[in-house]
Amino acid sequence: MTSPSEDPADLDRAAPEAEIAARAAAVRNWGRWGEADVLGTLNFIEPAKRVEAAALVREGTVVSLSQAFDTNGPQKGWRRRTNPVHTMTDTGTDAERGSQGFPHGIGGADDVIAMPLQCSTQWDGLGHIFDHGNAWNGRRAGDVVTSDGDLVTGIEHAASVIVSRGVLLDVGRHLEPDTGELADGYAITARDLESTIAAQGPSSAVGRGDIVVVRTGQYARARRDGWGDYAGGPAPGLSLTTAAWLHRTEIAAIATDTWGFEVRPNEFDVPAFQPLHQVAIPNMGLTIGEMWDLDGLAEICAQRGQWDFLLSAAPLPITGAVGSPINPVAIL
Amino acid sequence: MTSPSEDPADLDRAAPEAEIAARAAAVRNWGRWGEADVLGTLNFIEPAKRVEAAALVREGTVVSLSQAFDTNGPQKGWRRRTNPVHTMTDTGTDAERGSQGFPHGIGGADDVIAMPLQCSTQWDGLGHIFDHGNAWNGRRAGDVVTSDGDLVTGIEHAASVIVSRGVLLDVGRHLEPDTGELADGYAITARDLESTIAAQGPSSAVGRGDIVVVRTGQYARARRDGWGDYAGGPAPGLSLTTAAWLHRTEIAAIATDTWGFEVRPNEFDVPAFQPLHQVAIPNMGLTIGEMWDLDGLAEICAQRGQWDFLLSAAPLPITGAVGSPINPVAIL
Amino acid sequence: MTSPSEDPADLDRAAPEAEIAARAAAVRNWGRWGEADVLGTLNFIEPAKRVEAAALVREGTVVSLSQAFDTNGPQKGWRRRTNPVHTMTDTGTDAERGSQGFPHGIGGADDVIAMPLQCSTQWDGLGHIFDHGNAWNGRRAGDVVTSDGDLVTGIEHAASVIVSRGVLLDVGRHLEPDTGELADGYAITARDLESTIAAQGPSSAVGRGDIVVVRTGQYARARRDGWGDYAGGPAPGLSLTTAAWLHRTEIAAIATDTWGFEVRPNEFDVPAFQPLHQVAIPNMGLTIGEMWDLDGLAEICAQRGQWDFLLSAAPLPITGAVGSPINPVAIL
Amino acid sequence: MTSPSEDPADLDRAAPEAEIAARAAAVRNWGRWGEADVLGTLNFIEPAKRVEAAALVREGTVVSLSQAFDTNGPQKGWRRRTNPVHTMTDTGTDAERGSQGFPHGIGGADDVIAMPLQCSTQWDGLGHIFDHGNAWNGRRAGDVVTSDGDLVTGIEHAASVIVSRGVLLDVGRHLEPDTGELADGYAITARDLESTIAAQGPSSAVGRGDIVVVRTGQYARARRDGWGDYAGGPAPGLSLTTAAWLHRTEIAAIATDTWGFEVRPNEFDVPAFQPLHQVAIPNMGLTIGEMWDLDGLAEICAQRGQWDFLLSAAPLPITGAVGSPINPVAIL
Repeated sequence: MTSPSEDPADLDRAAPEAEIAARAAAVRNWGRWGEADVLGTLNFIEPAKRVEAAALVREGTVVSLSQAFDTNGPQKGWRRRTNPVHTMTDTGTDAERGSQGFPHGIGGADDVIAMPLQCSTQWDGLGHIFDHGNAWNGRRAGDVVTSDGDLVTGIEHAASVIVSRGVLLDVGRHLEPDTGELADGYAITARDLESTIAAQGPSSAVGRGDIVVVRTGQYARARRDGWGDYAGGPAPGLSLTTAAWLHRTEIAAIATDTWGFEVRPNEFDVPAFQPLHQVAIPNMGLTIGEMWDLDGLAEICAQRGQWDFLLSAAPLPITGAVGSPINPVAIL
Repeated sequence: MTSPSEDPADLDRAAPEAEIAARAAAVRNWGRWGEADVLGTLNFIEPAKRVEAAALVREGTVVSLSQAFDTNGPQKGWRRRTNPVHTMTDTGTDAERGSQGFPHGIGGADDVIAMPLQCSTQWDGLGHIFDHGNAWNGRRAGDVVTSDGDLVTGIEHAASVIVSRGVLLDVGRHLEPDTGELADGYAITARDLESTIAAQGPSSAVGRGDIVVVRTGQYARARRDGWGDYAGGPAPGLSLTTAAWLHRTEIAAIATDTWGFEVRPNEFDVPAFQPLHQVAIPNMGLTIGEMWDLDGLAEICAQRGQWDFLLSAAPLPITGAVGSPINPVAIL
Repeated sequence: MTSPSEDPADLDRAAPEAEIAARAAAVRNWGRWGEADVLGTLNFIEPAKRVEAAALVREGTVVSLSQAFDTNGPQKGWRRRTNPVHTMTDTGTDAERGSQGFPHGIGGADDVIAMPLQCSTQWDGLGHIFDHGNAWNGRRAGDVVTSDGDLVTGIEHAASVIVSRGVLLDVGRHLEPDTGELADGYAITARDLESTIAAQGPSSAVGRGDIVVVRTGQYARARRDGWGDYAGGPAPGLSLTTAAWLHRTEIAAIATDTWGFEVRPNEFDVPAFQPLHQVAIPNMGLTIGEMWDLDGLAEICAQRGQWDFLLSAAPLPITGAVGSPINPVAIL
Repeated sequence: MTSPSEDPADLDRAAPEAEIAARAAAVRNWGRWGEADVLGTLNFIEPAKRVEAAALVREGTVVSLSQAFDTNGPQKGWRRRTNPVHTMTDTGTDAERGSQGFPHGIGGADDVIAMPLQCSTQWDGLGHIFDHGNAWNGRRAGDVVTSDGDLVTGIEHAASVIVSRGVLLDVGRHLEPDTGELADGYAITARDLESTIAAQGPSSAVGRGDIVVVRTGQYARARRDGWGDYAGGPAPGLSLTTAAWLHRTEIAAIATDTWGFEVRPNEFDVPAFQPLHQVAIPNMGLTIGEMWDLDGLAEICAQRGQWDFLLSAAPLPITGAVGSPINPVAIL
């Protein structure tokens, strides 16, 4: 099998199924970590990598890479993806007025939330996407995710895993130095990723077990101009043709500051939907993060001239979830 | 003002209001970090502390300290505290059957959750508890938490803060070496905490900016015997008389493996409810964690003879929340 | 085909599949109202029946047949069936304190709810139960109900339908005149239903298009003694052998004051689950109501010696729902 | 006290507080039904009225007046008013595939919903609106609605009440015979209501205990053109000056086909919000319905030349709710 081209210009824009199939075959990791595997490329994170990453903590600064979780988010209800609804079951107003019935002057506030697990900053679990009815590691989708949730690869399996060296690739700043923002629809190529690494210098070298965070600048734009179509609309993002780069670098996970990780509209002239997800999640076993806030971190990294850090981004162990809201923190 | 006794035997068990008031006055930190403060004792975490903590990462092991988030939890509906309800909006079964209407063989699974923010492993935010209508830093409770949430000290303010040196005090193992489990109703004293530190050795020394995690063993019991009254029933936990210890050690935060942090039933013969919360949260500004799973970490620490580690436990930045579900990880 | 026995003593208690299959075949209404039908036996309600029922309104009394919808309900989380969680997004306390920011002294209170559609008084829709992968009218279950909901027979189709003559059969009072309560596990037979009708007199005659409400007395017991295992535990209810009665009477719908309509434990010595549902819903197309409060109505009917009334019980038109919370009202 | 003008031209558009106060004083019903009252004008429904209404059932037709409850609704998240999120906990796809683990071939589908109680067709309860911190019957708002819900006038109190004679006033058709739709911003006056009654004839006479449903035609427009700003934007609706008409007719309740019942923008040149609610709910004790679908009923009434019918619109008895989703049905 010859390797599929890494140049978007070579894509047959009328044939998504074939272009996807070729890349899926080229990067497929089924069986690589055994038949029972539930972690995919997260297996690349070895303990030594974490020790190496911890040594990057030199200032003791923590930067949250999470967007807010609240009703003022970008979601518009697509496939029931709404913004979080946070409500109080007890309030300070009630406590102050003496309505709560507790003894000795104690009062309390409590709250509940209802939200899609992918409403804001999150990890996609390995059960989130299927390729022709196949889930990660070659399992049948219906054996993995029923209405009871992900019975096999639920996000809870990653609860003690996702801490590693993080590397910020600020592609927005590298390619658009004036604005720091890629245009919607811009397809980031493997060449772009490599040139960003080269420009940023050795601290942004990417290798096995690293977690790569790619800043496009779209979230900065949304913050400035309003959400608009941030959720599901046109966006900069990774080209389908980066699949081989994602595979050969042996990264553990990757995240962007956009809704959908990959470029939108997708790179086809016929109906298509998230083709790089279809290659990366069920075939490669890659954990993907979306809707991260990378702007503050980007400023700090640029000032320091250092682009790697300890990244702590363990998901909530929601049993059977195919994704998890997270507050990833860069510690540096 | 003389300091209140640190011996539970001295408590006037008929006078919770007075006993609470004395301790509240003794530990009150209002104004200590300025009028606008929203972090309380989390301010004790200085950058150097995090650098020191990162140096504790020697093996590259990550241990999740989170219990599961699912419908099989301990909650029974008290004040609408239910267990999480996690449901799927798309499934693998549907994808495999071809019901989803996506192009080129891609399929997906997606999910939503409805849950109290304190249903499982969590941080109590500073707006969670009031003392006679007063919230942290002396604000009026009704100025802080309305039905719109915590307008001042919402948990989102801690999103880039809660990473520090963690210290496990395995009081259960120290006081009950045979079982490793304290009895329900056992009130942990400052003396118990100090004797645990002494027994465990220098790696468990506790000081400014540390996050202390106290293992009682009750969760191990619940895991073995069933939840029973884990949520709100009798439990081992900190005595009201530890308030001074919590204050003078200048710890940043503290967590236990129980539902309610402090001993239950509370240490009074008249109606009482969580008196140590009333002292610690609104007066001292202490962030408290509950329902942590400390059993796996305890085994590792005992084997290594080392009780401190890098603790990464940033909350989800849910705007205006008075608590947050978390997956705290010990990195060691 | 000979008709299956209507005597529970004749059931082969080791062979649920055969006993169910025989009855399913005997009562199957597939195609009776055309291939496109989405209403099943609700088709029996003809306009003239409603005019007849309206003529029963002689006193102008309305009796709600609904249990409460709140957190103090019987649900225990089985298959994520929890009690409703009702929370406020605005309160009177806030309004009174002036926290809401509205002009000219107006204030407001608002609320949200999260609940299973079958948490309290409800109708089962036709997509609620399947028989060997078949849904009502012979459709394949996977063509009808996906994670997008019931795409064919959703409860919204009954929004303008369920108003008819209601008939209360107070089997509890008839068979247990002292207590008015059948024992848990008591299987109501067709003979019991007929003897109740005979005892109550002509106003309880049951025929085409009627909605029958059967009082067992179990809810009165739960109200008095606490919920206990009301949700899913032992209960009086209809015997599997009543399937033929349900069919030949041509009733439109039926409801009981129990969690599960049919007798529990089910009438088999091997694992079995709701066999009468399996016969009645997908095969007969019968709409079934559960968890109704029939106690107040029973008192009134007994006093008047009249057992029929206008019953208005239209479901909420929740698109694609397989059931609906309702407040059925008897108007008499 | 002279009666406030019923002509919108007389309103002082710079003085909402005074205009509201004058009308609140003129229509205030506090104490009219005793100090303990929880029903307000619903008390006007006497049993004889229901018997009279039942006699209007001549054809046996049922018309649902409910809009759909689903994710494709008009809500945009204002004050956390979202559209309903309906999700499945069990599906037919799973049942057909054999994933559910039930015996003898039975399969099931089940579902949950999360929704604001005012997301679609609903009643406003008496605890929904306050006037200067006062709730219905002169109670203090904070004594009535806390974060535990409406402790006094919760919607559950109306569970056995709201069945009466309904009268449709198709103001849209009367004033705009070509389109049947009033323009957004059109303020319906008492004169408009009376002229509609006169034009429609004696079957639309309005008096004590009736429930009036006013069709503006805006929902027909939204159905045709898309929701746009249906939720909270400009709309036709009742003028503040109709308060006296609402009072002197002694109607039990009123509903419209719009989001907010009253005309929007409200009739002032300074910031104002729902002034007629402020008069009608806490002062008059009037139950108000919103977001009803009156188009089908309007066609039938016009064809028959009869505008009254039996209206059955009991709320779900959600304990402590300040509103309820409903499926009101006209039976005629």
